Amino acid sequence: MSKIEQIQNWLSDNHNSAALITDPKTIQYLTGFYSDPVERVLMMVVFRDSDPFIFGPALEVEAIKDTGFTGPVYGYLDHENPWKMIADQIDSRKLNEKDFAIEKTALTVDRFEQLKKVLSTASFTNDITPFIEKMRLIKSDDEIEKLNVAGEWADFAFKVGFEAVKKGVPESAVAAELEYALKKKGIMEMSFDTLIQAGAHAAEPHGATSGNLISDNQLVLFDLGTVWEGYISDASRTVAVGKPDDKSMDIYNVCLEAQLTAQDAAKPGITAAELDKVARDVIDKAGYGEYFIHRLGHGMGMSEHEFPSIMEGNDMVLQTGMCFSIEPGIYIPNVAGVRIEDCVHITDSGCEPFTHTTKELQYVD
Amino acid sequence: MSKIEQIQNWLSDNHNSAALITDPKTIQYLTGFYSDPVERVLMMVVFRDSDPFIFGPALEVEAIKDTGFTGPVYGYLDHENPWKMIADQIDSRKLNEKDFAIEKTALTVDRFEQLKKVLSTASFTNDITPFIEKMRLIKSDDEIEKLNVAGEWADFAFKVGFEAVKKGVPESAVAAELEYALKKKGIMEMSFDTLIQAGAHAAEPHGATSGNLISDNQLVLFDLGTVWEGYISDASRTVAVGKPDDKSMDIYNVCLEAQLTAQDAAKPGITAAELDKVARDVIDKAGYGEYFIHRLGHGMGMSEHEFPSIMEGNDMVLQTGMCFSIEPGIYIPNVAGVRIEDCVHITDSGCEPFTHTTKELQYVD
Repeated sequence: MSKIEQIQNWLSDNHNSAALITDPKTIQYLTGFYSDPVERVLMMVVFRDSDPFIFGPALEVEAIKDTGFTGPVYGYLDHENPWKMIADQIDSRKLNEKDFAIEKTALTVDRFEQLKKVLSTASFTNDITPFIEKMRLIKSDDEIEKLNVAGEWADFAFKVGFEAVKKGVPESAVAAELEYALKKKGIMEMSFDTLIQAGAHAAEPHGATSGNLISDNQLVLFDLGTVWEGYISDASRTVAVGKPDDKSMDIYNVCLEAQLTAQDAAKPGITAAELDKVARDVIDKAGYGEYFIHRLGHGMGMSEHEFPSIMEGNDMVLQTGMCFSIEPGIYIPNVAGVRIEDCVHITDSGCEPFTHTTKELQYVD
Repeated sequence: MSKIEQIQNWLSDNHNSAALITDPKTIQYLTGFYSDPVERVLMMVVFRDSDPFIFGPALEVEAIKDTGFTGPVYGYLDHENPWKMIADQIDSRKLNEKDFAIEKTALTVDRFEQLKKVLSTASFTNDITPFIEKMRLIKSDDEIEKLNVAGEWADFAFKVGFEAVKKGVPESAVAAELEYALKKKGIMEMSFDTLIQAGAHAAEPHGATSGNLISDNQLVLFDLGTVWEGYISDASRTVAVGKPDDKSMDIYNVCLEAQLTAQDAAKPGITAAELDKVARDVIDKAGYGEYFIHRLGHGMGMSEHEFPSIMEGNDMVLQTGMCFSIEPGIYIPNVAGVRIEDCVHITDSGCEPFTHTTKELQYVD
């Protein structure tokens, strides 16, 4: 059954006449077309009983058609009212009922008010977000193949990046070198800003790559990913320059054990919360529990913000085809930070990572 | 008056007890702290009668404090319920009334429902978005200084990029060279994906940089920008390789005349719609009106999606301190595309561009 048919069945089950799809990633998932329209309007309307249409900025219409979407594509110019035009197209379908599902996580209060104004006789009772999330949760072989290719490019980036780490070089130069090498190979898009953090700077788990110089006897944390045909990679490695102090070495070893133990435990049947606990127990036991201040992992695929979330309280049972990160981290303020991460997909008997760069501590300069 | 005081006055005028600020760019505008929390929750609550607080992911708390925000900062862990914790903090203030303003353009329907659940006795009648937009519309001298620096880095990027354009080189390699040069200088963030499009590819105004090879006798379109201390640049140039055909040369000259004429006309007192028409008239008169399929420009500052929008129907009168792009474009499918763009700020007597790379056609290889 096609993805559109699955949505049409859901609409039928939920007595809705159409779904108003406003998350650009959902549109990409359904059609292959991706664009972030920012303040412009992009919407796909999937009707229960007729063909879907896509409505968007006039300057995107050709690109939408080029992706092979065969339904109608309507464009609007900047000075036109997109909401009115969408309502006119919907009205022209002469629907018997007007109960529309919306994506509540991808529609702002402001835009919802605009929609309610132009579709004044309609109701909007259902949120289709959870159903879409569930569709995206289990990856197909084709999706896993794309994730594998994205992972190979992350491994390439680590290789270039490790060679670029030298005493006296700024963190930013390492990021520059690896992104340059990727772009020269035609990989234009990173899945997020490349993170290179040396020494104590790595203890800020949401800090950014800076102009700080890499020094001798430090750990250097890498967190990076690439995009391949709409699918991402995301991986972290921590490497050594010179001879890091004992504390740094200790947290590296504990973090590595936590990562390997969790990756070994990831298989169908374990819950997300149990997997989080596998890694957390290792770190707690070593006395660093208070320094592991984020969940073990996040779902991923077309973005790094999908399900399942690997954390306390999430009793979702892991199943074949689910994809997520396993990324324990230990961050000791003013000392050092370590994170080691592979994203994996659950197989029938365990899991397979998308990245294969060694996790044994590498001494790079 | 500080920005917080301006918001407190607005709250007083509108009989609201607090504003729930959820747009990360607004939080940056008010505090200097920026983070895109994606699926995590980041909120600043500005009370009419007491000090504001910021609530966010635990792993951002130190970074928020580092920016100098002196009010309370509350963090939550991934498995905790942020909405409940925000409500508890608000409840602890013992407000007499609970009528809260929200940012309707930066709050999803889903999150609004969560808020209404935990703040079940509150009302949410007012949208503070238009007031924030109005605050951000007129830039201070300090903001214009940052925009000038961001513009200088865009000029640097053009210089490197023009040198990288060669016959037989892919578009992607040109983007790689200029971003690499910026990163080596410590400029880590582009304001959007760098766009390099050669020949007919440039006729897709929302296409992306590809692996297409640059050929002889083509125009090559650049659209790029950098980020400097939270403020962006955004500029376009189109350059020539060899001797482009007459049609390409003609649309270049028309587009340039439209850009220069509009930039010359931009001053206090003209409306956004009138300015759009100045450029459009030039292109219409030359017979290319149907190929100029977007507005003349967009407001900019902390992002390229601010006010004023320079387009038909917008009767906003331009005033000193407003910042926006002037970017006519002519896109003839399967032939060529030209766009020439400076962002400017309105001065007392005219406007000043943030970028200074020549707009005379450059022959680069």
